[in-house]
Amino acid sequence: MSLRDRVAIAGIGCTPYSKDSGVSTLTLATRAIMAALEDAGLPPDALDGLATHRVGDSVLPALVAQSLGVRDPRYFLDQFGGGSVSHAVVGQAALAVDAGIADYVVCYRALNARSEFRMGGTGRPLVDAVETQYQAPYGYFVPPQQFAMAARAHMDRYGTTEAQLGHVAVGQRANAALNERAMMRTPFDLDDYLASRPVVEPFRLLDCCLETDGAVAILLTTRERARDLAKQPVSISGAAWGGGQTLFSNQQPDTTTTSAANLAPRLFEMAGVGPRDVDVAQLYDCFTYSVIVQLEDYGFCPKGEGGPFVESGATRLDGSIPVNTHGGFLSEGYVHGLNHVFECVSQLRGEAGARQVAGAEVGLSTAQPGYVSGNASALVLRRAE
Amino acid sequence: MSLRDRVAIAGIGCTPYSKDSGVSTLTLATRAIMAALEDAGLPPDALDGLATHRVGDSVLPALVAQSLGVRDPRYFLDQFGGGSVSHAVVGQAALAVDAGIADYVVCYRALNARSEFRMGGTGRPLVDAVETQYQAPYGYFVPPQQFAMAARAHMDRYGTTEAQLGHVAVGQRANAALNERAMMRTPFDLDDYLASRPVVEPFRLLDCCLETDGAVAILLTTRERARDLAKQPVSISGAAWGGGQTLFSNQQPDTTTTSAANLAPRLFEMAGVGPRDVDVAQLYDCFTYSVIVQLEDYGFCPKGEGGPFVESGATRLDGSIPVNTHGGFLSEGYVHGLNHVFECVSQLRGEAGARQVAGAEVGLSTAQPGYVSGNASALVLRRAE
Repeated sequence: MSLRDRVAIAGIGCTPYSKDSGVSTLTLATRAIMAALEDAGLPPDALDGLATHRVGDSVLPALVAQSLGVRDPRYFLDQFGGGSVSHAVVGQAALAVDAGIADYVVCYRALNARSEFRMGGTGRPLVDAVETQYQAPYGYFVPPQQFAMAARAHMDRYGTTEAQLGHVAVGQRANAALNERAMMRTPFDLDDYLASRPVVEPFRLLDCCLETDGAVAILLTTRERARDLAKQPVSISGAAWGGGQTLFSNQQPDTTTTSAANLAPRLFEMAGVGPRDVDVAQLYDCFTYSVIVQLEDYGFCPKGEGGPFVESGATRLDGSIPVNTHGGFLSEGYVHGLNHVFECVSQLRGEAGARQVAGAEVGLSTAQPGYVSGNASALVLRRAE
Repeated sequence: MSLRDRVAIAGIGCTPYSKDSGVSTLTLATRAIMAALEDAGLPPDALDGLATHRVGDSVLPALVAQSLGVRDPRYFLDQFGGGSVSHAVVGQAALAVDAGIADYVVCYRALNARSEFRMGGTGRPLVDAVETQYQAPYGYFVPPQQFAMAARAHMDRYGTTEAQLGHVAVGQRANAALNERAMMRTPFDLDDYLASRPVVEPFRLLDCCLETDGAVAILLTTRERARDLAKQPVSISGAAWGGGQTLFSNQQPDTTTTSAANLAPRLFEMAGVGPRDVDVAQLYDCFTYSVIVQLEDYGFCPKGEGGPFVESGATRLDGSIPVNTHGGFLSEGYVHGLNHVFECVSQLRGEAGARQVAGAEVGLSTAQPGYVSGNASALVLRRAE
């Protein structure tokens, strides 16, 4: 049976986002989960399932369960993978809730990605994939390098400009200025962007997401149960994850198109909506370029026109499709994906304050579109009755 | 909706089990998967989902998909964890098949666990859990040590004897002598067992599972689709995974009982059967002791009586509940859990040759019962119409 609108997000929680949390990932996880439970109006012992994902920093679901006093979880998931699986975790857990494996499952991600395991650090490959043996000897193995190569290909092929990358960064910082959770709230303009120091050509410092200590928790239950809880339920209309082409696959015909292009039709079919129905989109923004390519691959604009689309202002708060309304990973913080879901839920509940998109009913939230691991994942969420 | 009997195992495949495969885990995975597809009578391009788990050795689902020419998988799972999650992977994937996320999902595990990453090796903790910081400084961090402490507690509390551990090993080797896939087929008796060299008290060499290079693949589809394929379908009647107590949890009242004791009632409830209905059981046997404690925790005998139960011959091929009919991890090989599922399916199809349990209709296959990660997982399988 299709998952469409059968499972709801009943609670959301997060810790402060910082450069140095001063506490363990276990503490971060439990704090975010307690906040999500409080948001839903549920006690900790209601929880009977835990789901997370890992690369680098992590904390085992069993240890989190013990810390919360959940003696006998009926469901757990500890998915290996980084940003690309962040939304797959929610999709997987939703299947378990729908099948009655567990009633209240929390999806969380906790990491000290600035003060401990730095995701963008050099020195070792992030993923121990077979492929890295061909890349590591050349010193090519961290995300800024990998995405830079894809961005350059897009610029060569479609004429995407540095200024267009810059418009992503400038626009998201303007949103972050309206977001009390954001780590970086001081606005900058295109000149500031262009003057920021190079990291990996064509990326400057302001093209790159933050490295963050923090945690996010997303509480799932059935849509029926969610009706009786404290907050406006947000249902999972569509969940899709898949795509099998890494950036250097022989079967990848074109490095300027991501796995999201394959995944998007399935996602929207499950949800029963199309890109035009989406009121607000949180698109995985490890780098500015990722937003541009996803605007194309999820169908908000034709292939190759992501750059001009952003330049037109369409993705701003008052545009046709507001994107990364919290400032995204570039300005709010990088909690590896789930902070996009948090913001999407906030918007659909009408709780986004000064950055609220009026009347938002349908939201898209996406994970990394599949360069490194070959996978992508995404959710279509809807304000539920 | 309950998962009971809605998803079937339509194909099984494996590579030879050896001490030195001479090929990569990617090659092992593709060979086992091709064998499972051939078993089901399906071409590789029918496949649209891949699921695995990892600790140490591994191979990314996306790379396996590329190798098989599967261009656009609609489902993937790469669960972090060792033996305890081996059966959770099948349960998770079954949820995805049931929900129509994908139609043909292969669950695989490929590892060069003898020639490359040795699971039982000392030198580093196997899992980067928070807990290891308290154990590693004492040199206590590999599975033989962990399970030995639990076995000793059971011996102290219930009078379980070294000879009873030995009967597990002797009995399984007798089964392996009838299994052409088994790495170790030369029978031994209790004297041989008692004379084998000590590893970690009370474990001798013959208490410990093998370290194996090899791969297993289990192909899932809906029960309806499975009817039209080449082999007798085996349905997934029950799937359960959970349990949140690691061996040293403050909330673990008793180290002689595992997470399986919590999980078993849920498992059997979903399946609509009880331990008495099980015709054949493949119980996770990283060490002999694990079999004894699971006989108790899955309800085949009262708590504390696992040792005498094995000594009575009840678990032999001609006993009331034949256990580890292939020789198990102790004698067939250690493919981290899925080779138990392979044997269980073989038995339920009536394909187990000289070691066939006559008329086997219901089988239990279990993962590690939750010492190290706190998790357990298990499946009840049934010969389907």
